[in-house]
Amino acid sequence: MNTSTTVQQRLLTPGPTAVPQPVLEEMARPIIHHRTAEFEAIFAEVGQRLAKLMQTRGPVLSIAGSGTTAFEAAQVSLARPGSTVVAVGGGKFGERWQDIFDQYEGTMTLKPLRIEVPWGEAVSPDTIEQVLREHEDVSLVAVVHSETSTATACDIRAVAAAVQSAAPGALLLVDGITSVGAMPIEQDAWGIDALVTGSQKALMLPPGLGYVGLGERALMRLEEVKAGPCYNLDLRRWLKAHAKNTVPFTPPVSLIRGQLVALKMIEQEGLENVHKRTAALARATRAAFTTLGLALCSHRPSDSVSGAYYPDEVDDKTFRSALRDEYGIHIAGGQDGRGASWSGRIFRLSHMGYVSAEDTLAALSAIETLLLKLAPGTIACKAGEAVAAAEAELVR
Amino acid sequence: MNTSTTVQQRLLTPGPTAVPQPVLEEMARPIIHHRTAEFEAIFAEVGQRLAKLMQTRGPVLSIAGSGTTAFEAAQVSLARPGSTVVAVGGGKFGERWQDIFDQYEGTMTLKPLRIEVPWGEAVSPDTIEQVLREHEDVSLVAVVHSETSTATACDIRAVAAAVQSAAPGALLLVDGITSVGAMPIEQDAWGIDALVTGSQKALMLPPGLGYVGLGERALMRLEEVKAGPCYNLDLRRWLKAHAKNTVPFTPPVSLIRGQLVALKMIEQEGLENVHKRTAALARATRAAFTTLGLALCSHRPSDSVSGAYYPDEVDDKTFRSALRDEYGIHIAGGQDGRGASWSGRIFRLSHMGYVSAEDTLAALSAIETLLLKLAPGTIACKAGEAVAAAEAELVR
Repeated sequence: MNTSTTVQQRLLTPGPTAVPQPVLEEMARPIIHHRTAEFEAIFAEVGQRLAKLMQTRGPVLSIAGSGTTAFEAAQVSLARPGSTVVAVGGGKFGERWQDIFDQYEGTMTLKPLRIEVPWGEAVSPDTIEQVLREHEDVSLVAVVHSETSTATACDIRAVAAAVQSAAPGALLLVDGITSVGAMPIEQDAWGIDALVTGSQKALMLPPGLGYVGLGERALMRLEEVKAGPCYNLDLRRWLKAHAKNTVPFTPPVSLIRGQLVALKMIEQEGLENVHKRTAALARATRAAFTTLGLALCSHRPSDSVSGAYYPDEVDDKTFRSALRDEYGIHIAGGQDGRGASWSGRIFRLSHMGYVSAEDTLAALSAIETLLLKLAPGTIACKAGEAVAAAEAELVR
Repeated sequence: MNTSTTVQQRLLTPGPTAVPQPVLEEMARPIIHHRTAEFEAIFAEVGQRLAKLMQTRGPVLSIAGSGTTAFEAAQVSLARPGSTVVAVGGGKFGERWQDIFDQYEGTMTLKPLRIEVPWGEAVSPDTIEQVLREHEDVSLVAVVHSETSTATACDIRAVAAAVQSAAPGALLLVDGITSVGAMPIEQDAWGIDALVTGSQKALMLPPGLGYVGLGERALMRLEEVKAGPCYNLDLRRWLKAHAKNTVPFTPPVSLIRGQLVALKMIEQEGLENVHKRTAALARATRAAFTTLGLALCSHRPSDSVSGAYYPDEVDDKTFRSALRDEYGIHIAGGQDGRGASWSGRIFRLSHMGYVSAEDTLAALSAIETLLLKLAPGTIACKAGEAVAAAEAELVR
């Protein structure tokens, strides 16, 4: 972020997201040692509040690293060696979980099975049910709830029901990295066996921590399989330490302290209110995009991030640089994967965490102004109309 | 750290260590996105300065997680499948690297070989040479330079020479987690193929980042073996991203920014001066311990951390609680492992990073006062004599 300018900077990328000042200040306090009663109390409270956020009675493990670290740990720790493991594609992150299962094909004798979904579409619960009925030995199904790369959310509640019905012995592992804390998701009630999220999205913290919520069946699987192929990524090791309110390896103590402050802020606003705010920002953004005549990149848009295709005349780099340098608005471009190459073709705007209606309207106003300048012929509205459409959604 | 008290708190545990105020302030600045020219420039500069610190021309990878994350990544990425891999014990961390090789015995068909050393002693280069001459297919040797659990350093330069002489085809992987930035270590000149360190020790940052410096032969091995068993922990993935000044997964951006400030502080003091300061604090501490009549827990003491056995009358918990609550001094106790159970038997004091003569003298004075109170019969000196011995070392 260009902090030498006097233009206020707004970070609206779908992770990392902006961190509230009280959280930044908490993390700037002197370091404490992790093998102390003081840290253990903070760690325990963070775990309890995370469980409340994920709506699980199970333990929530805090793993140093990125969201990918935590997700890979869940994949290798919960898969039953020799079994079929399913991962749903449809975006960069779904494809990553497919790649990770492939990686362990040899070492864990896994039989990885891919369910492919076109980018921008959500997996149908029927497809999952059908695939699971065709394969008897599925031990684990990995599904992304909100696919950040395509700004798409699936109906994870219906997916969970489909998994339970078609393969009662399979565990469901959900990537909630851009859904937990942004969109309704109830781990236990919906039957999600393991739920992974990250610190740097709706949880309003810098990157550096991944979280894994474990339901009863996941805990049973960890006992049944006994040991995973890796050391650091073996959830059993983290679970054992978690019971003593600690972690097996030196944890990012400042991030964990910051997380406590951020979780308290979420509880103060109220989780339902956070969800409503996030959904309203998403609706407002989609209304603005539609008014501008932009095509959404998703057929089943997520509420945590919105994405739209650029008009043909608009160059991604020119657009996002101008947005950043002239307006202080930081958004993301597209990503590439096996299913699509969206780099240069779309842009994305986050609604997660510490972002207000004012931030979103400022961004939409800048986007509207800039698009009218760069592609006057193809933008469907007059100046102000996209922002007006967004405002109309916000006052509903 | 008890921040509700008016007693100044001093964190002298051997990791996490105290973080300087300018670093804490840098990390409290607004979050920036990692896929930006601004972050890439910071990341590149951190990499260059780390390479200077480690004294290598090779790339230094920044890996999110603990020091263990980075070390496991180096172990699994550099070992040649089917080969013999050697890890030297002698402390909790050496034993951990042994455990990690064991973990991959099946999946990588490794033949793990342990060199055992009594806790508190350093491995002899001759022992390493002998073991390597007895085994022809050794691909990787993992050795701890400064073993934090026993406050012991080995002669890593002589170890490197022994490895080169006895097994020219084997790579040497060094745990420099509590040596880099605290004690002289020259990766390239000494022939260390891969050197791992962590952010939360002499590098004056909170925990959350591990670093891996890769020499030429390590880079060749990564090309030769092609792929490791894990995804996140495969150094090839990090190396590929590193060439583009980035990382494969969302990095802890605030920590990396803080690291740049901390590295500049080290350069400003001058690396040699940092080494001299650290060594002087260690000498002063050992002189105080000896004056008190305490036995050092190491026969070959490290300069980054000092440890001593308690007198029989002194209870670890009582001692360290009083030190913390009455004097604001935070030190570490002992650890347990396969080779020894030092929990409750020893205490340890760090000299790494952001710690001054004043901090150390304050700690030694409190230790002396408290020991004279708790074990008046066994302490060998009168009040003030231990501090005087320390001061004498500091003015040398």
